[in-house]
Amino acid sequence: MTRIAITGAAGRMGKTLIEAVQLAEGATLSAAIERPESSLIGADAGELAGLGKLGIAISGDINQVIDDFDVLIDFSAPVATVANVQACRAAGKQIVIGTTGFDEDQKAGVHSAQSDISLCIASNFSTGVNLCFKLAKAAAEILGDDYDVEIYEAHHRHKVDAPSGTALSLGEAVAEGLDRNLKEVAVYGREGQTGARKRETIGFATVRGGDVVGDHTVMYMADGERVEITHKASSRMAFARGAVRAACWLDGKQPGLYDMQDVLGLK
Amino acid sequence: MTRIAITGAAGRMGKTLIEAVQLAEGATLSAAIERPESSLIGADAGELAGLGKLGIAISGDINQVIDDFDVLIDFSAPVATVANVQACRAAGKQIVIGTTGFDEDQKAGVHSAQSDISLCIASNFSTGVNLCFKLAKAAAEILGDDYDVEIYEAHHRHKVDAPSGTALSLGEAVAEGLDRNLKEVAVYGREGQTGARKRETIGFATVRGGDVVGDHTVMYMADGERVEITHKASSRMAFARGAVRAACWLDGKQPGLYDMQDVLGLK
Amino acid sequence: MTRIAITGAAGRMGKTLIEAVQLAEGATLSAAIERPESSLIGADAGELAGLGKLGIAISGDINQVIDDFDVLIDFSAPVATVANVQACRAAGKQIVIGTTGFDEDQKAGVHSAQSDISLCIASNFSTGVNLCFKLAKAAAEILGDDYDVEIYEAHHRHKVDAPSGTALSLGEAVAEGLDRNLKEVAVYGREGQTGARKRETIGFATVRGGDVVGDHTVMYMADGERVEITHKASSRMAFARGAVRAACWLDGKQPGLYDMQDVLGLK
Amino acid sequence: MTRIAITGAAGRMGKTLIEAVQLAEGATLSAAIERPESSLIGADAGELAGLGKLGIAISGDINQVIDDFDVLIDFSAPVATVANVQACRAAGKQIVIGTTGFDEDQKAGVHSAQSDISLCIASNFSTGVNLCFKLAKAAAEILGDDYDVEIYEAHHRHKVDAPSGTALSLGEAVAEGLDRNLKEVAVYGREGQTGARKRETIGFATVRGGDVVGDHTVMYMADGERVEITHKASSRMAFARGAVRAACWLDGKQPGLYDMQDVLGLK
Repeated sequence: MTRIAITGAAGRMGKTLIEAVQLAEGATLSAAIERPESSLIGADAGELAGLGKLGIAISGDINQVIDDFDVLIDFSAPVATVANVQACRAAGKQIVIGTTGFDEDQKAGVHSAQSDISLCIASNFSTGVNLCFKLAKAAAEILGDDYDVEIYEAHHRHKVDAPSGTALSLGEAVAEGLDRNLKEVAVYGREGQTGARKRETIGFATVRGGDVVGDHTVMYMADGERVEITHKASSRMAFARGAVRAACWLDGKQPGLYDMQDVLGLK
Repeated sequence: MTRIAITGAAGRMGKTLIEAVQLAEGATLSAAIERPESSLIGADAGELAGLGKLGIAISGDINQVIDDFDVLIDFSAPVATVANVQACRAAGKQIVIGTTGFDEDQKAGVHSAQSDISLCIASNFSTGVNLCFKLAKAAAEILGDDYDVEIYEAHHRHKVDAPSGTALSLGEAVAEGLDRNLKEVAVYGREGQTGARKRETIGFATVRGGDVVGDHTVMYMADGERVEITHKASSRMAFARGAVRAACWLDGKQPGLYDMQDVLGLK
Repeated sequence: MTRIAITGAAGRMGKTLIEAVQLAEGATLSAAIERPESSLIGADAGELAGLGKLGIAISGDINQVIDDFDVLIDFSAPVATVANVQACRAAGKQIVIGTTGFDEDQKAGVHSAQSDISLCIASNFSTGVNLCFKLAKAAAEILGDDYDVEIYEAHHRHKVDAPSGTALSLGEAVAEGLDRNLKEVAVYGREGQTGARKRETIGFATVRGGDVVGDHTVMYMADGERVEITHKASSRMAFARGAVRAACWLDGKQPGLYDMQDVLGLK
Repeated sequence: MTRIAITGAAGRMGKTLIEAVQLAEGATLSAAIERPESSLIGADAGELAGLGKLGIAISGDINQVIDDFDVLIDFSAPVATVANVQACRAAGKQIVIGTTGFDEDQKAGVHSAQSDISLCIASNFSTGVNLCFKLAKAAAEILGDDYDVEIYEAHHRHKVDAPSGTALSLGEAVAEGLDRNLKEVAVYGREGQTGARKRETIGFATVRGGDVVGDHTVMYMADGERVEITHKASSRMAFARGAVRAACWLDGKQPGLYDMQDVLGLK
């Protein structure tokens, strides 16, 4: 049983992580940490997450609970994460990091810990998304140039960029599988007299509206058939579940730097 | 029982029309016409369409079979259609016209026949597509401005324009229902830092690849829910069936000019 | 501007209703009510809903705030709703009721208020679902017996019945449009040597898994084309938004008993 | 350039194979064979397939053209195929076999040729379907027991069995990946008070209607996300293209018995 600590326990992602630990087999919540100035220090982590009392009080100091857990899951902010990595390194604890936005110095500091402890760092902890990167590339390699590839994605109305980072990563996975350069073959919109489709093209069709968390489909289209690989996110639980999976996987691993492709055995 | 004649009987659409008449209740094939120079004059129309012998020989002259049918279905070319309309008008026969590309004179000639006979003319005879125009507008009126509208369409790799005419017509139906001007609010692609979605926008997401006959989806997306209206064409049989439905509907109607919205009772 | 009161303000639906009122144009939150024994009496309704301070304190007694609102939205329990209807009736306030599970006496009590005030009662307040009932029937009437109708639905793994009530209502809407009796033509599963499809059948294909809030698709399938009408729920916000829409519509209406079909102009 | 011969050249599959050879790079049609009693002996294979003149006359005897090709593609009937295998074996030609319905003796006769020539035999030559078997199993292995698996399939109204053989094969691929026995965990329909979903279940949702050639989707559903693998067949061209791919792959291979998993490098 992997004993897990959660930072930022009172935030949205923190609460979701607490729930994900509860739902996972092989994992148990053993510590929950918030900023020391939070009014929730001492509150029960389970009640906070709407799960009923779990007997784990929110702590304001990672060092006070450092002996209580095996793996820390940290989706917080760069400065806090750097400090948490130091504490884990000193105590020989593993760490799963979902924090983004490190500068180069912070990044170097975090990465240097790999000589002493095991870390799992990823930009997207969803098991499904990471699987889809793998499947998209494999399908491209097997289907080859006879199949036209197009990528559809939909997100909520507040999203400010297009296509999504995940859509572009899917495009890169396909391009790699087909030995093409995505930058040269990507098409982001079609209007007017476009002429017939060029075979090497990879098209992106982007939808924005409502509250869509994130839908992605890679289509491989030929005469007589279509293959589609689809991912639909419905909540941040997808990311929390992946992070807990990474924590359990990390427990007992040799010191080193890992990512979700390692965790999922996709390399 | 409506007795139907088919022109261009040896062409792809002609053969599909012959099959559609055979499948329809209330309709029977009673004449089939080809250009007089065709080597298939005298062949059996059913055998030609792969349906077995029907006892209807291909004729090279509409006037030879003019007494044999009630309604002509004509998906041919402007010059031939103009001549066929004259023959039908002289004999008091109705006519369903799927021919496109008339010049103004030809159009005027065809339309003038409405004082003597009933004609049904449409750019798209698919029952489903015509229904979707109606549903898309009705949904827009009821859902109103709280729902973001986006239109997805996919077609085969050979299509040279985008979005499809049907997608644009769906957009116009929605815009009409929402009292917007499609030209002002249409978005045909999204790339880079687009900013959050503007509420009045109607977005088009276009996919090109493989042999897709034609997929269209109108999406209405709000917080908490999505409504979608979808049409998927799989063969020209959709158009043939609509034309036969129009022919049966036309049989016995007062002289006049009708379209598929009349046939389907959608006005 | 319609001034709206929410009961059960601290519950999940209550919080969602508070958010929906905030998002709606033409509506403003003017009262929020909880059971008098709640520890949240006096708290700010906006803070409770995670929206920041709105200046509306949670009240424990509807009569204390009865002059502060035009329409009450009540998604609570039968006994509470009956009392709230009496309070609204005495004060000439309108009421939107999403409560379910009334016994006959309670139902009669609630309905009797229609002589003095206007009430809107519905089993499903989603605008999209109510629209789909209407579209599904209209499509069936227009497409007729040539189109095979099948209904697909997916829900989360915890759902204990199948098909969903909404799927069955969609089936009834289609059956009505086609002049069939759903009980006689429904098919709930297919296994083994089923033989070819019987034309009058309406099939249900049911998926259970994950956390799907509710997906429904009605398919009309013929030679050459398919029409599909789809609804996808992503959160209870769909129901909250519909209830707020009903409240605004009800404001100023003549006394009477209404439902969502009235609100949406679908009758 | 692989020189290909087609048997049953005047049949539907034969014509589609001729077209598929024309579309393929690295393949050329060099012979086309029909039963000797066919009235089409001597006709041009290209004209027959609607592709214009190709200069390949339909032959009534495989031995007359045995030196003209490298690989035979045979989608005919067991007796004819057995004879064609003998002819190819005697002449050292390879053969792709899509014929089904062999009895044990015929099967043994066909298989025995593997000592002298290379054969590719498969029940489904679609590249996409074979790929999906592979992806479905890989996804199951990686996602594991946390994801509920459901399989959706749709076919035309004439199909007499359910679920489709392909859907069952997808189910077996998933069951193998999850170390389950499909027979024990398959659910073919849901009606009434079913109770919550049992985790080990693999559900099939079957749709029948219209002219759907074949749609299949495997869904993996968890809290927060869904992964879907979809195949959509639109015509027999999918099978023809796979057979031509197999023929090119077979050309130059060592004698032996191969299937589509070999051709696609999926083993």
